[in-house]
Amino acid sequence: MTHEAGIPLGIRFKLLSDTPQDSAAQVVSDVVIGDYRDLDTLREFARGCDVITFDHEHVPTEHLRALEADGIPVRPGPDALVHAQDKGVMRAKLDAIGVPCPRHRIVADPDDVAVFAAEGDGFPVVLKTVRGGYDGKGVWVVDSVEEAAEPFRAGVPVLAEEKVDYVRELAANVVRSPHGQAVAYPVVESQQVAGVCDTVIAPAPDLDETLALKAEEMALTIAKELGVVGHLAVELFQTRDGRILVNELAMRPHNSGHWTQDGAMTSQFANHVRAVLDLPLGDPRPRARWTVMVNVLGGDYPDMYSAYLHCMARDPQLKIHMYGKDVKPGRKVGHVNTYGDDLDDVLERARHAAGYLKGTITE
Amino acid sequence: MTHEAGIPLGIRFKLLSDTPQDSAAQVVSDVVIGDYRDLDTLREFARGCDVITFDHEHVPTEHLRALEADGIPVRPGPDALVHAQDKGVMRAKLDAIGVPCPRHRIVADPDDVAVFAAEGDGFPVVLKTVRGGYDGKGVWVVDSVEEAAEPFRAGVPVLAEEKVDYVRELAANVVRSPHGQAVAYPVVESQQVAGVCDTVIAPAPDLDETLALKAEEMALTIAKELGVVGHLAVELFQTRDGRILVNELAMRPHNSGHWTQDGAMTSQFANHVRAVLDLPLGDPRPRARWTVMVNVLGGDYPDMYSAYLHCMARDPQLKIHMYGKDVKPGRKVGHVNTYGDDLDDVLERARHAAGYLKGTITE
Repeated sequence: MTHEAGIPLGIRFKLLSDTPQDSAAQVVSDVVIGDYRDLDTLREFARGCDVITFDHEHVPTEHLRALEADGIPVRPGPDALVHAQDKGVMRAKLDAIGVPCPRHRIVADPDDVAVFAAEGDGFPVVLKTVRGGYDGKGVWVVDSVEEAAEPFRAGVPVLAEEKVDYVRELAANVVRSPHGQAVAYPVVESQQVAGVCDTVIAPAPDLDETLALKAEEMALTIAKELGVVGHLAVELFQTRDGRILVNELAMRPHNSGHWTQDGAMTSQFANHVRAVLDLPLGDPRPRARWTVMVNVLGGDYPDMYSAYLHCMARDPQLKIHMYGKDVKPGRKVGHVNTYGDDLDDVLERARHAAGYLKGTITE
Repeated sequence: MTHEAGIPLGIRFKLLSDTPQDSAAQVVSDVVIGDYRDLDTLREFARGCDVITFDHEHVPTEHLRALEADGIPVRPGPDALVHAQDKGVMRAKLDAIGVPCPRHRIVADPDDVAVFAAEGDGFPVVLKTVRGGYDGKGVWVVDSVEEAAEPFRAGVPVLAEEKVDYVRELAANVVRSPHGQAVAYPVVESQQVAGVCDTVIAPAPDLDETLALKAEEMALTIAKELGVVGHLAVELFQTRDGRILVNELAMRPHNSGHWTQDGAMTSQFANHVRAVLDLPLGDPRPRARWTVMVNVLGGDYPDMYSAYLHCMARDPQLKIHMYGKDVKPGRKVGHVNTYGDDLDDVLERARHAAGYLKGTITE
């Protein structure tokens, strides 16, 4: 999707990909197959690149520092990216700059979890490995000291967090350039199913304007204070008592910003590319009253063509974005966007299409 | 731009390109370099393709018939495409189906041109080679029998046409599927400079609704009667006496439809892909009150990066589409789209950006 956004600007990508089957490798012409955890591979790949950016945060921080030392611009740079790689580092930094988070502490063992629970409202407690988790992986909600044993088995540091009493999840998406320009997309509501993003509504319905502004400001502050370059998604809890707390950070175009492809004047992908190249940013404002994104998860029907016939005929305004992935149950294989003036209608259209593509709706 | 539109649908292109420098060859991953005039090259290329389509009309008609005989679907097919390849065939067909055209006749030599002139209002007369012309090439406006010699030198058939007294040029863009579904984009005004499209305004300002409907109907009739599959652009004259006459046909996404990338609910490229694959077509309606496209012609500044800084900073809503071509004076190297509620503002923004990218505006 970033390649798609680069084409009209004449910006050409060289892609480092794990396998030729990766989504990006199917559409980018200049592809190197290799392991992003191997420094020699990275160095060889980086030769001749004007700038390096990412579609995930897993490239080891120390390798990014080595590339920078070689004189290759890395955006976002390792000093920023580490906050999206390591939840312990992220929480410490957000505390330091005064951004509200759930109560949290690095914990040493299950007994320490019990102490952490007792310091607050008791169990349940959320435990997260500080590195490597996504889409609910590497996250446990534990109700007792016995249940708290599992997360420590991998031998990596574990972060304990209060289980926040939230009414919904929001996301604030911003983009920041090396020269310090920043834009904020409208704050969206993000609905999760089983820990995986399912639906995004832009803008978040019935969100108090003061809270919306506060969320945007928090995201802009984080981008600035952490030195982010490119897209930053700040996943937020809206608490029952009216506060906004930071859940997670992602430093790349993010699922909560996919709606911008068809719903904003400039997509998150286009603005990420512009930021990485230090070009002036595009207008982040919405083009429609409501835009809804619903993820398409892999289901029982590996053949999408017959589903296209139904979905496109039913809704000529539907925007389908498929990733070319092999369909496996539960895997994110694409998303759909819809927009319009009537939120109920826009939601129904997106959910119907995503359900039909998945195979859970058949009429 | 068609590749760009195919990515979100998971539709992968294999490209036959003259050179690796061609715009499409820079962004498509599966590229074969070869000559589209060579049947063996075409046959080798076509093996394994589900369907063949085009971004120009110059593949010889007989080669397309050979591919069809091999069992490869060609869309649009040769029986339709010949009308966009041969202006003599096109005029004869439009006459037969009752679509109004400028007065015309195939002429044998300069004396025959003089006869054609005398049958009407005299000179000037427009002469066109029936094949191979585009962007004003292969077209002559002659004021005398002496001037009429030049077009015959190539030894190809020549079509004479009355020089139409038109107030402006319009274009009607439609898309048609194999199963007969068709959609019509709003009729646009197309402003030419030195025979080359310069500015497109969507929808055509102050166009009488009856005339607009008539133009759409003409384009839909042509698409149906000629058996077009995919995008059809019908270039039109709006005459001083209030008629609409067909100037040219193009059977592919067309310069007069580039505005749809940012101004319509479904772009001409997305709908062309959908039509070629016999998928239901997307909504062609505009997303803004006004959308303006201005072509970027090559100028004195081969480095576009510094122009990007100015253009993007001046207008955060500007949409730049560059083709990755080497900049040569007068060559179409890209276009810009702008949209909004105020036509004067939208026009000014597009013209400023195109002029700045070309280098004719420097402040």
